[in-house]
Amino acid sequence: MQTLRVELGERAYPIHIGEHLLSDAALVTPHLDLPKVAIVTNTTVAALYLQQLSDALCAQGVEVISIVLEDGERYKVWPTLNRIYDVLLERRCERKTTLIALGGGVIGDLAGFAAATYMRGMPFIQVPTTLLAQVDSSIGGKTGINHPLGKNMIGAFYQPRLVLADTAVLASLPPRELSAGLAEVIKHGLVYDEGFVAWLEQNVEKLLACDARALAHAVRRCCEIKAAVVAEDEREAGVRALLNFGHTFGHAIESGLGYGKWLHGEAVAAGMVMAADLSRRRGLIAQADVDRVIALLKRAKLPVAQPGIAPGRLLELMAVDKKNEGGKLRFILLDRIGAASICAEVPADLLQLALASPPI
Amino acid sequence: MQTLRVELGERAYPIHIGEHLLSDAALVTPHLDLPKVAIVTNTTVAALYLQQLSDALCAQGVEVISIVLEDGERYKVWPTLNRIYDVLLERRCERKTTLIALGGGVIGDLAGFAAATYMRGMPFIQVPTTLLAQVDSSIGGKTGINHPLGKNMIGAFYQPRLVLADTAVLASLPPRELSAGLAEVIKHGLVYDEGFVAWLEQNVEKLLACDARALAHAVRRCCEIKAAVVAEDEREAGVRALLNFGHTFGHAIESGLGYGKWLHGEAVAAGMVMAADLSRRRGLIAQADVDRVIALLKRAKLPVAQPGIAPGRLLELMAVDKKNEGGKLRFILLDRIGAASICAEVPADLLQLALASPPI
Repeated sequence: MQTLRVELGERAYPIHIGEHLLSDAALVTPHLDLPKVAIVTNTTVAALYLQQLSDALCAQGVEVISIVLEDGERYKVWPTLNRIYDVLLERRCERKTTLIALGGGVIGDLAGFAAATYMRGMPFIQVPTTLLAQVDSSIGGKTGINHPLGKNMIGAFYQPRLVLADTAVLASLPPRELSAGLAEVIKHGLVYDEGFVAWLEQNVEKLLACDARALAHAVRRCCEIKAAVVAEDEREAGVRALLNFGHTFGHAIESGLGYGKWLHGEAVAAGMVMAADLSRRRGLIAQADVDRVIALLKRAKLPVAQPGIAPGRLLELMAVDKKNEGGKLRFILLDRIGAASICAEVPADLLQLALASPPI
Repeated sequence: MQTLRVELGERAYPIHIGEHLLSDAALVTPHLDLPKVAIVTNTTVAALYLQQLSDALCAQGVEVISIVLEDGERYKVWPTLNRIYDVLLERRCERKTTLIALGGGVIGDLAGFAAATYMRGMPFIQVPTTLLAQVDSSIGGKTGINHPLGKNMIGAFYQPRLVLADTAVLASLPPRELSAGLAEVIKHGLVYDEGFVAWLEQNVEKLLACDARALAHAVRRCCEIKAAVVAEDEREAGVRALLNFGHTFGHAIESGLGYGKWLHGEAVAAGMVMAADLSRRRGLIAQADVDRVIALLKRAKLPVAQPGIAPGRLLELMAVDKKNEGGKLRFILLDRIGAASICAEVPADLLQLALASPPI
């Protein structure tokens, strides 16, 4: 097991990464205020891992309540959140009961927002079970739900007390989920670390084959990057925004298609190609760099073009992006492979071209 | 105009108290990141003050969007909150647009929670227009909505950037609202300041008659107390809980009657009598002290007994109180007039007596 820390002063917390951590309740109990937890998960993950985590905690004398939700991005909405509140209240969960998210990004976002808002905040622990959640969404305290007019529009920054990333569970991921996670892995490299991009170019097939050592390395490197970025800029006033590379386009794709048609990572992959293309049109990177991005995403079995949504519709959907300021769209663009910056001055004609002619 | 400060480090903010501050937009504009605000208010307050505040801001070049909700505690629920999100998104409000709450406690709680959660947090300003909101609910960052199983169960701690308490608007309050506000005024005295209780005993009729000087004194003294308590204990880990004196019973009364039947302050008044009675039964204060509490509340035209809800039902409703720990009810009890403490060890028989025989 390896342990990283997200250095956030009094809200600092550890990330434990390793195999078979799910049944090691001694990693969890020191973070509980009361011997009572509510585990939020979905039907798919519950069938695989709920018993294991629950038994381990019960064996340590912890009372365990479980809340099993439907699986999928389309359930990341108010009625599902309200179901969590209902059970917490019916089962007399208190302000010091701990909420545990056991699942992927949707479960982490939903459960985290429930924890942030139940009785104005209860302790929260992330146990991510997808690659995407382990490398990205479980770290840094972004929580929330979707609104019909935009993804992740309702939410809170709310840090967990602990992230427990059991890399053994990744072996059970469907190939499509694994690829979706790789989109965020690749994003970390493109924005912050060219050396990691080069490593990914050498190891992407190993990752797709669930090679344990390769996965462990990828998870650790992404967690290192994410933890450092979050420690520097918890509330996304600056450098953290760069982690949204590909997401302005990606969120618009998810929203335009209807949540859940594409996985988040798939939409981000197509979004990163559009953002790379826009970076080239702005003269920041060469076509060879765009081609390098596309090639890596293709090898990771990810889509590299958006699914035919009209450019005007995408523009409309991007108008509610959280990064926008003073009515201006803001984009994360690549300065080179391994470095990015935020750009508020994208000429409308370039944007139209990037939206209209995806470079497949 | 007088200005107090809530000392919360980087989240510190001023409270301006004075007459006719509503039309002084220069007090507001320094706190805006962008010249765009969304004012959340209700139909009653909109008819009286929305134009005044809106015109003043427009004259300073600020774009103003208004969101007018139904009036009443029963609207402090998810569908109303969602209406705020809908308008914010439709009108392209951004993360740096400022939300202004113009109204009483319900509007402040709703708008504050919307601000806390829209795009994971937008700037927020409180313009309280009721006595209750000016002396209590607009200060300290408690925001939230009700759940069918409990009052204020869903919410967040989210501090405003500014509280603007225009005492001139109190003259337009219906007598019942004024009295409800006095319940919280009296609470501040009972818990923290016997001298203020004595002052209230001499001035309660002046306050009911909307005497400007008396109101200004009461608002300022309560804001001083509240600001100091919040600065010491923002998240209610300790001393701030004392401000919930009467509220465990009060919330159960509101919930048991159905939200909106009694005003919050009315339920708190009856709740304070029950809490004082329980303090006497625990041997902390004398019957003469209980009588003194009752007499002052009666002079403020407030109810001093709960409206006949079965004790068993009240107990059930109190079981979800946010202060409870480890399955134990916790109560705020008076040690004397002007001092209180939290008590987790109330024998069941004493509690039954306090619930069953309200001392009218």
